[in-house]
Amino acid sequence: MKTLVKTKFFSFEEKIKLENGLEFGPVTVAYETYGELNKDCDNAILILHALSGDAHAAGYHSPEDKKPGWWDAMIGPGKAFDTNKYFLICSNFLGGCKGTTGPSSINPQTNKPYGMDFPIITVEDMVKIQKKLIDHLGIKKLLNVAGGSLGGMQAFEWAILYPDAVRSVAVIASSTRLSSQNIAFNEVGRNAIISDPDWNNGDYYDKAPPARGLALARMIGHITYLSEESMHKKFGRKLQDKKHIDFNFDVNFRVESYLRYQGKSFVDRFDANSYLFITKAMDYFDLHEKYGSLAHAFKDSKSQFLFITFSTDWLFPPEELKNAARTLMSLGKEVTYCNIDAPFGHDSFLLEFEHQSKIISNFLSSAVDKQ
Amino acid sequence: MKTLVKTKFFSFEEKIKLENGLEFGPVTVAYETYGELNKDCDNAILILHALSGDAHAAGYHSPEDKKPGWWDAMIGPGKAFDTNKYFLICSNFLGGCKGTTGPSSINPQTNKPYGMDFPIITVEDMVKIQKKLIDHLGIKKLLNVAGGSLGGMQAFEWAILYPDAVRSVAVIASSTRLSSQNIAFNEVGRNAIISDPDWNNGDYYDKAPPARGLALARMIGHITYLSEESMHKKFGRKLQDKKHIDFNFDVNFRVESYLRYQGKSFVDRFDANSYLFITKAMDYFDLHEKYGSLAHAFKDSKSQFLFITFSTDWLFPPEELKNAARTLMSLGKEVTYCNIDAPFGHDSFLLEFEHQSKIISNFLSSAVDKQ
Repeated sequence: MKTLVKTKFFSFEEKIKLENGLEFGPVTVAYETYGELNKDCDNAILILHALSGDAHAAGYHSPEDKKPGWWDAMIGPGKAFDTNKYFLICSNFLGGCKGTTGPSSINPQTNKPYGMDFPIITVEDMVKIQKKLIDHLGIKKLLNVAGGSLGGMQAFEWAILYPDAVRSVAVIASSTRLSSQNIAFNEVGRNAIISDPDWNNGDYYDKAPPARGLALARMIGHITYLSEESMHKKFGRKLQDKKHIDFNFDVNFRVESYLRYQGKSFVDRFDANSYLFITKAMDYFDLHEKYGSLAHAFKDSKSQFLFITFSTDWLFPPEELKNAARTLMSLGKEVTYCNIDAPFGHDSFLLEFEHQSKIISNFLSSAVDKQ
Repeated sequence: MKTLVKTKFFSFEEKIKLENGLEFGPVTVAYETYGELNKDCDNAILILHALSGDAHAAGYHSPEDKKPGWWDAMIGPGKAFDTNKYFLICSNFLGGCKGTTGPSSINPQTNKPYGMDFPIITVEDMVKIQKKLIDHLGIKKLLNVAGGSLGGMQAFEWAILYPDAVRSVAVIASSTRLSSQNIAFNEVGRNAIISDPDWNNGDYYDKAPPARGLALARMIGHITYLSEESMHKKFGRKLQDKKHIDFNFDVNFRVESYLRYQGKSFVDRFDANSYLFITKAMDYFDLHEKYGSLAHAFKDSKSQFLFITFSTDWLFPPEELKNAARTLMSLGKEVTYCNIDAPFGHDSFLLEFEHQSKIISNFLSSAVDKQ
């Protein structure tokens, strides 16, 4: 039976101060919840999504939906984030295009979409908006914040910015700063969008969107989310609907067909300007630079930490979180580091559930015990 | 003192049969030579270039040139390919845009550039044209053929197609078939070009070329040529001409500036259609599929083999040539495999000279001794 969920909305009029110094507002936040908040309001967990994710983390919006939310395998009765025990919240982040205010939202000053007038935002700004939502829901302290990739970056900022509002933090397939190689891939993706004449300096909401550029950006992304090993196993050099190479520029190999499909289908569900602003927020993420050092960043944190990495994740290599765990240990903080042997590359956090579930489930139980 | 060299040209009128079954010709081949062919004509070495290379492997075209040929550190008096001992030949391959017939050449049937009417070519076709050049130069047997990346693929085909014409083969940072991940990166690069409205179905030679698409393809390529480690060392998260991130979409990080520069400057020196045809030839390269198995491919080969890989080359992982070496050993062929510990990723074959030079120099001496 499909569990049906609805996306809810929370809006506030007052302006918030962004990390870039500008005041910004009003803001609407799209969010979903799963499970029930208990009387003591101490069983709430905030799930933080990655670049192309949204508030729809689990369940189905309608009985006709073919796919559930993006982390449905992890969230539900008896699952890692057990809805029989915990109250789960997931919101679309600031700058997104799935219900929360972003570049495609109407700018009240012009009555037109913000486009490139949207302010440059950071991971800190995303987290500040999430804190507003948590306050609105009447939750003083979250039992846990958890996220993979960009979601993990938000989890880090939660632990640093709101040490009294977070009992425990699960950072998965992520890093304390974006690497040079990752900035490079983001830069190429952004250039693909900006180079598309249909981008029109971000002003395309009443016209054809920059579909070619956004599809290219997504294709590049997809290669980086998989491991060489998983691409080899999934596609190898298998041909698409033919027995022999046919000496033309049509799709020859399955991997080409897969990438073209991923690129095209992304255009139907994502806004190119959001892609620009969110990747920029990722580029700017650097806890070392922002707080002087990693040790300084975490000195006031009161959370219990769990770091999970995946052996074949070359986009966010395990070494990064392993080093962060060492720093936290040297500060006397509680930290668990697990490297899971999984073949799916960076996408492992969305595909590997067996080990991830056990580790997270145990970690949450221990966080409850220590509450 | 700068050694000056000139590019020479060799043309033939007769048509050759391409691997795709079509007849093609006439063909002009641009080539350079370094050193002197000896009386016995047994000191000739053919250097094979990679995707964006050309016939200008060593020396300078004019005293004003700032940079020498692409493998100048390896070719010259006393260098790995010692011009005091050997006669070096390097030609631009079929499909290129540096003097040898390619998509930008005039199609004699229409008196316009071929564009997309150029035939789909393969690595075998490139090698067949090179054999014509070697015959023209009066060389019956090459002492050695050597190349990195796509150059190594050509070297493999030389050993297989012309077992009596090759004494030894040096394959560097290459593979016996292109991986799924490499096909994927090539496909994205080609899509970037084809998505550019200026590409105009390949018919742009009297107009503006698809500069944005080709620049994007080159940017993607550049990320894959470097290792994560070398990007971290070379750029890290260093900012470009500023002390703090400035919250806009201009270049913020040095790595962004580097990629944009590499993309733009490539457009001035390379033809987008050549990029399409050459990457397609790489995609199609698969000795296992073409010859039934790797063992079958090499069964008649009489060459002595040297395989060199680099520890941080994730585009052409060392494991590939290591496995090929095992196959050759099992066939009783002479093969040496060296994995060089170098930080520069795939580009190591163009940057690491200390170990590479010694290994190649010794290998060539041994090939001479066994002649």
